[in-house]
Amino acid sequence: MRHKGSHRRADLDAVLAAGFLCHLGVTVDGTTMVVPTAYGVDGDRLYLHGSVASRSLVQAPDTTVCVTVTHVDGLVLARSVFEHGVNYRCAMIYGVPEPVTDPEEKLRGLRALTEQSSPGQWEYARQPSRKELAATALLALDLTEASVKTADGPPDDGDSEDAALGLWAGVLPVVTTFGAPVTDPVLPADFAPPAHVAARAGREVHEALPGR
Amino acid sequence: MRHKGSHRRADLDAVLAAGFLCHLGVTVDGTTMVVPTAYGVDGDRLYLHGSVASRSLVQAPDTTVCVTVTHVDGLVLARSVFEHGVNYRCAMIYGVPEPVTDPEEKLRGLRALTEQSSPGQWEYARQPSRKELAATALLALDLTEASVKTADGPPDDGDSEDAALGLWAGVLPVVTTFGAPVTDPVLPADFAPPAHVAARAGREVHEALPGR
Repeated sequence: MRHKGSHRRADLDAVLAAGFLCHLGVTVDGTTMVVPTAYGVDGDRLYLHGSVASRSLVQAPDTTVCVTVTHVDGLVLARSVFEHGVNYRCAMIYGVPEPVTDPEEKLRGLRALTEQSSPGQWEYARQPSRKELAATALLALDLTEASVKTADGPPDDGDSEDAALGLWAGVLPVVTTFGAPVTDPVLPADFAPPAHVAARAGREVHEALPGR
Repeated sequence: MRHKGSHRRADLDAVLAAGFLCHLGVTVDGTTMVVPTAYGVDGDRLYLHGSVASRSLVQAPDTTVCVTVTHVDGLVLARSVFEHGVNYRCAMIYGVPEPVTDPEEKLRGLRALTEQSSPGQWEYARQPSRKELAATALLALDLTEASVKTADGPPDDGDSEDAALGLWAGVLPVVTTFGAPVTDPVLPADFAPPAHVAARAGREVHEALPGR
């Protein structure tokens, strides 16, 4: 089966662990907006910067939002245009975002947000001051209402009438990797990045966990 | 300036040309859904498969949707956690999707959808039969109401108090490339992919146009 759906928490965790950017869907004044934003996961909650959704929260505090995380794995090139598709992993989370006000959870959420995209940076960089913490709106979303959809594998028209066309078919993989770190030009050019940054160059960004 | 906004059509075209997957936001029964789906551009219109949005269209035919296309270019690693960010290019298009019923436009739209992700496949693969065309719901969205946002360049805390911390700062690039084509396992292993597919291996997926 090329397409699979899942409500297993382990599948959700795997998709979330393999990324750092989501698309947040919010409805403000009847208009739906889809905004890309970074996320972090800590325990059973997903954290987002609140700036994006703040308008909708102020205007309609109990509005359900949708957070979607998608990793593209390849283009499926079938024998017919009709059977073309995309291999992907996608998680969709629905919930009413809750502003994080507890200072301890806020710090934990911001740490999760930072470490999701940039592991090691929370300890390496300067952590938020009291003033910065106060200026940061953070939202939490429970991971309880979520689903995962994936598409994987070769085109499935290999045993259809179209197989007789004798055309090539297969998958063109799409791979996202980290490049070599680019040092801020105001620093000396030979200022080497710390090991936790340098070690990521060439690594896959959305790598699936082993066995998946 | 790290962050830029634009309403120029050329900037919109550039972001759309560099991708093939969007996140479609639709509201059905008061619930917002964000769904990843392929898109194609032809002239002043963006085309999408209708299956995803059909529920919302049937229930609320005049509902405005939001289509967002995002390319992630890098992680911005600043001296403080507070200044961390993401370099990206993002287009947001708002509009009321219109079901494409004219057979000629439907064919043109499907061609645009196919060629957006897989240039050359429309001519190489079997084109849609009359039956397949009838079974395909296609939606068109005008490109009139759209905006582009980008973030680019190094962290901007190089001249802040934090510069004295002596920490490394810079950008960790994120690069998406096509891998080597994987032939459908039901075909002979030495069945070579056509030139228009083979030539993409190693190429950047979301490459910016020269001069951007």
